[in-house]
Amino acid sequence: MRILILGAAGMVGRRLIDRLLAEKTLAGEAIIAIDAFDVVAPDLAACDGVAIEASAGDIADEATVKALIAKRPEMIFHLAAIVSGEAEADFAKGYRINLDGMTHLLEAIRAQGENYRPRLVFTSSIAVFGSPFEEPIGDTFLSAPLTSYGTQKAISELLLNDYSRKGFIDGIGVRLPTIVVRPGKPNKAASGFFSGIIREPLAGQEAILPVADDVRHWVASPASAVEFLMHAATMDTDVLGARRCLTMPGLSVTIAEMIEALRMVAGDAAAARIRREPDAVIEKIVAGWPRSFDASRAESVGFAADKSFADIIRAHIAHIADAAKRD
Amino acid sequence: MRILILGAAGMVGRRLIDRLLAEKTLAGEAIIAIDAFDVVAPDLAACDGVAIEASAGDIADEATVKALIAKRPEMIFHLAAIVSGEAEADFAKGYRINLDGMTHLLEAIRAQGENYRPRLVFTSSIAVFGSPFEEPIGDTFLSAPLTSYGTQKAISELLLNDYSRKGFIDGIGVRLPTIVVRPGKPNKAASGFFSGIIREPLAGQEAILPVADDVRHWVASPASAVEFLMHAATMDTDVLGARRCLTMPGLSVTIAEMIEALRMVAGDAAAARIRREPDAVIEKIVAGWPRSFDASRAESVGFAADKSFADIIRAHIAHIADAAKRD
Repeated sequence: MRILILGAAGMVGRRLIDRLLAEKTLAGEAIIAIDAFDVVAPDLAACDGVAIEASAGDIADEATVKALIAKRPEMIFHLAAIVSGEAEADFAKGYRINLDGMTHLLEAIRAQGENYRPRLVFTSSIAVFGSPFEEPIGDTFLSAPLTSYGTQKAISELLLNDYSRKGFIDGIGVRLPTIVVRPGKPNKAASGFFSGIIREPLAGQEAILPVADDVRHWVASPASAVEFLMHAATMDTDVLGARRCLTMPGLSVTIAEMIEALRMVAGDAAAARIRREPDAVIEKIVAGWPRSFDASRAESVGFAADKSFADIIRAHIAHIADAAKRD
Repeated sequence: MRILILGAAGMVGRRLIDRLLAEKTLAGEAIIAIDAFDVVAPDLAACDGVAIEASAGDIADEATVKALIAKRPEMIFHLAAIVSGEAEADFAKGYRINLDGMTHLLEAIRAQGENYRPRLVFTSSIAVFGSPFEEPIGDTFLSAPLTSYGTQKAISELLLNDYSRKGFIDGIGVRLPTIVVRPGKPNKAASGFFSGIIREPLAGQEAILPVADDVRHWVASPASAVEFLMHAATMDTDVLGARRCLTMPGLSVTIAEMIEALRMVAGDAAAARIRREPDAVIEKIVAGWPRSFDASRAESVGFAADKSFADIIRAHIAHIADAAKRD
């Protein structure tokens, strides 16, 4: 099996590649090649028996996408996107990457003709929903995004459904929760503090909490994100009917519950490194985000949430320890 | 005010132009020009005081749309579309006209820059919904179309919302019910019989009814379609918030109720001209269509349904009589 990964240099993309190379098979077939594509070429180690080709380019360029599809990968993971803040700041760029990129991909596949119908796993987002919400948000609730990023994801979902219905692809879209704990340095994303209040205290550093303790959010671990993609790649998609995009199961947790889990796993000293510094701008942004979902449809077809927030923290600690060993 | 009408040669477009020329003002402003555009140039009579320019072209051609927008119309009615059956049979053509056409329109407007923000009235469709439905279908129900046409309309709605949110347009989308009674000859559209069973008996001809008497459908008169567009063109759109597309109020009627109204208005002889000839293919198509909607959101902002199906029939009779007088 040949696998194409668009957006391979991102956090989820790199973890997915690690997992695929550890398995060396997917859906019972040997993985013979992985094309790892991103705007910068991913830095990948060689692997016995699997041809790994890292390349860089722009998915808004039609010819670039055509060339990737000309190799007729049986499995495609489309994880590439301009993030929400950037798509909001640069309207044209967001549409070019997040929408034209998807269109080029679908059209390149369709142009290959009848004997080619790859599985296409697409990472969508809960940003396809916009307030006012029903709570919890179910799978028949309107997509009414309040950002250009959410609009581009919602349109991509509609295209994925229609191209699947017409038999051009075997598509499935997974709406990821906010991924916590993201490794690495603090970033300026409005959602960054959800990871920061765990990651920094565990590293012995102070973390700033800009919102109230009763703020509730929908989260999943990086490991669960990879599990979602692996299950989406291998499951029977016939059970989805015409609605091929699903909200992934997450944990609906409050900040207070996150901090209590941190205290339980890492002690009072870690929890004490969180400094409360309310930020009205971030509070307002976060207040507009959905807080809880009914993901029973995804659960009924085999997707599973993290068991507890304490488990998410323990997995993060183990991952950091592994990475330190490899360095 | 300069008005641009895309899809001006269709039944609704022609009636809209008649209405605008009768009013000669819109939203309190004198209408100085109407650009009437379609794939074939509409055949329009001259009108004192209003410059009417009929032209033909392809909205899938970017330069064509740019030239229309260069005149900076303050009001745009976008009614142009490849119909459902054709969009299903010719996948590429449907996307070119129904999606690329919309994209070209929005981008041409955006390219005009900050001092241009026209009202854009877009005719969407209840085809944005696909079964399984909730009944009645409310305004927070998922758009999960089961046709490429419905997909293209649903995507256009998302774009209209996003371009409005960003301030490039002042957009509003109206999802029209099935329009009954359509004048003219019988056509091969699966929904054609809804008009045929009224139109043909009134003209002294036999009509074929391919479905059972208890089939329920969501309909509005051609006059109501024009009223919806006029109200959408003139209403305060601020009340819509970020969700600018609305299901228009219709009548939810059964075939039996339609026939009973025909009997009441035109007598037993007319009703007797309907011949029942069940067609399994059409029955199956119609069974997949939505039957009733909760249009209370549209009603709350001033859109109104026809009062009764008997009124729809009477309006059709009056329209045919008027047209005969003009000939």
